[in-house]
Amino acid sequence: MLIDAYNSKGFNIRPFSSSICFTADKSAIIDPMHFEIRQNDGNARSGLIETTRGTIHTPAFMPVGTQGTVKAMSPDELREIGAEIILCNTYHLYLRPGHNIIDQIGGLHTFINWQQPILTDSGGFQIFSLSALRKIHENGVEFRSHIDGSLHFLGPEKAMEIQCMLGPDIAMTFDECTPYPAEYEYAVKSLELTTRWAKKCKDFLDVRASDFQSSALPSLFGIIQGGMYKDLRKRSLEELVEIGFDGYAAGGLSVGESKEEMYDIIGAVGTQMPADRPRYLMGVGDLQDMLVAVESGFDMFDCVMPTRNARNGTLFTSKGRISIKRTEYKADPAPLDPGCNCYTCRNFSRSYLRHLFLAKEILSMRLNTLHNLHFYLAFFRKMREAIVEQRFASFKKEWDSILVRDI
Amino acid sequence: MLIDAYNSKGFNIRPFSSSICFTADKSAIIDPMHFEIRQNDGNARSGLIETTRGTIHTPAFMPVGTQGTVKAMSPDELREIGAEIILCNTYHLYLRPGHNIIDQIGGLHTFINWQQPILTDSGGFQIFSLSALRKIHENGVEFRSHIDGSLHFLGPEKAMEIQCMLGPDIAMTFDECTPYPAEYEYAVKSLELTTRWAKKCKDFLDVRASDFQSSALPSLFGIIQGGMYKDLRKRSLEELVEIGFDGYAAGGLSVGESKEEMYDIIGAVGTQMPADRPRYLMGVGDLQDMLVAVESGFDMFDCVMPTRNARNGTLFTSKGRISIKRTEYKADPAPLDPGCNCYTCRNFSRSYLRHLFLAKEILSMRLNTLHNLHFYLAFFRKMREAIVEQRFASFKKEWDSILVRDI
Repeated sequence: MLIDAYNSKGFNIRPFSSSICFTADKSAIIDPMHFEIRQNDGNARSGLIETTRGTIHTPAFMPVGTQGTVKAMSPDELREIGAEIILCNTYHLYLRPGHNIIDQIGGLHTFINWQQPILTDSGGFQIFSLSALRKIHENGVEFRSHIDGSLHFLGPEKAMEIQCMLGPDIAMTFDECTPYPAEYEYAVKSLELTTRWAKKCKDFLDVRASDFQSSALPSLFGIIQGGMYKDLRKRSLEELVEIGFDGYAAGGLSVGESKEEMYDIIGAVGTQMPADRPRYLMGVGDLQDMLVAVESGFDMFDCVMPTRNARNGTLFTSKGRISIKRTEYKADPAPLDPGCNCYTCRNFSRSYLRHLFLAKEILSMRLNTLHNLHFYLAFFRKMREAIVEQRFASFKKEWDSILVRDI
Repeated sequence: MLIDAYNSKGFNIRPFSSSICFTADKSAIIDPMHFEIRQNDGNARSGLIETTRGTIHTPAFMPVGTQGTVKAMSPDELREIGAEIILCNTYHLYLRPGHNIIDQIGGLHTFINWQQPILTDSGGFQIFSLSALRKIHENGVEFRSHIDGSLHFLGPEKAMEIQCMLGPDIAMTFDECTPYPAEYEYAVKSLELTTRWAKKCKDFLDVRASDFQSSALPSLFGIIQGGMYKDLRKRSLEELVEIGFDGYAAGGLSVGESKEEMYDIIGAVGTQMPADRPRYLMGVGDLQDMLVAVESGFDMFDCVMPTRNARNGTLFTSKGRISIKRTEYKADPAPLDPGCNCYTCRNFSRSYLRHLFLAKEILSMRLNTLHNLHFYLAFFRKMREAIVEQRFASFKKEWDSILVRDI
């Protein structure tokens, strides 16, 4: 039975969203997150993350709801296509509408009407990639809002406080996303700072946990940095494991490096990460890249690729990528992907989708996004099946040839 | 049983959309449109228009799907909120994607996946309001596309041919929308031209009907012009009745005239129109204006007001209009309209709707449009009930005071 607990220490009452579980006598508290591997296939693994708000089957893809909405989608549609967890951005929600507003409404789940698991990032990545001005201090980062240029400060404690008020199921440590390229010396200093910040995030949550004597607070994942240096990645991971987190994530990838460099790090880091904890590869969402990462033992992914590509008219199908604006689809009565059973493919022709795209209609963004996310989530379902049936290698080989095709 | 018939004379086969009805022996053809008044209350009336694609309860509001989509809505959502007919714009669909493309896909119903009734306008209004260059000839109008400046010609025959290829349930005659203000002499010439064009539209359809020996073609409504001159409006109506149409529409209103002038024409024209045919007031969609028009005997309406206002953040509620961006809604956990049972009001707070609007999220346009259209369609349901229960006057009085409120 779910009841509320965030009713003191500056956090408002959240009548509808809470992650505390009480047993019948309302005393024993259940672990908010349980991870279990059901099947290994080489280094690839399939399992599940159980949270108080629902089960996440891994490998899992998390649609991105930057500003508290997965662009163009309703929460009902996300559920219908099988999304089990979404990611929301702390940086964006902190700036607008503000974490205090969301807290007043009853937390992020209530605010956006998504009662299944939510992972929030810590804001680090956005500050380093979106903010005009940023000054790094030992205690955090000073930056200017991309919306109105106003000055803000975010550090490990503040990032945790904001995330606690948003109330996700999984929170991330505040890290410095090491830029690419980075000199070795810079990468060392950056990872050391990231470790110190990770420790502060953990401490903040530990203090809060004892405040509340409960597990109402989110699970916390530590973020590995270290640039493109394998020894630094290893060191970053070891330092985080020393602190101890509920899961581990590789950050600072897909930031401009070559595929070779990325795959090199993914391969090195993936299998080194603790096997009994979820392994999350942040921001890498190219389907081929994710196949490589699953092959190296990663379990969780997020990326704006399916949603952003959808709005740009690039659509994924079982035969390859389609650019819907192409003239050849002008009078094509066929569905986008005859093998697909999503709402878009069941109801509309390529001809209509092309028309909506060229006419810049909102329905174009809706139908395209629905299809691409459905494709991604179905791809992950098939991938999990392949792992369970011990045929991930052939699954990967088959899709590697499809995914490079433009049709 | 619905079967296909558009299989000769330059029209392609339409496997999924047709409006011919055959009886068991496949010979007797049913009238494509049947209009019946069930109840009068003063001059207000409630009834139904039966078409081969479904029943339209009157007074009826038709959401506008300019480019073959009611902006931000899916066809499923339109059905769910009770839309029984939508309007599509011939001018827009002729320019993009082109009526020939839509015909190749199987007609407009199949193209946009809306199997219920569709009314297409004739393109006249758009040419006179949107086109940069326009030259009026006896046979039609030369104009430039608002999309690419290309030169086009539309006249009564062409407008009918395009509409027949789109395949709506109700088509409109090609008219000159008399501008406001217009000198009496201009208004006379304009209405005379509109009458000649209306006759040509009717003749075109009659020839087609005998070509096909069927009633596969759309019903045709004639459009009354005459500017703000009641005698000319009367003359226009009489000339159209002389030709004979399935329904009659008042055009050239809500084009810049005062409310007084508009109400004066609505009052004069409404009750003069044949009582046994649907009476359609084109493009007037302010709720108060429509109450006046229903009071004067009008049955059908269309307007972009609910959808356009939704995208601009102006929302209709049972207590008055709300501008969702206002600061007072920043942390307001209440639904937009506590008395409303639409998806938006059942699931989201004013606070979230305000956030989505300020963040310019697509979901903002979706949720706002869904609510406003739901409000309009529910308003019409209540209005029909009031007429059936002989209490339209009190219904109008009650709403007149609500509709002027900004809350």
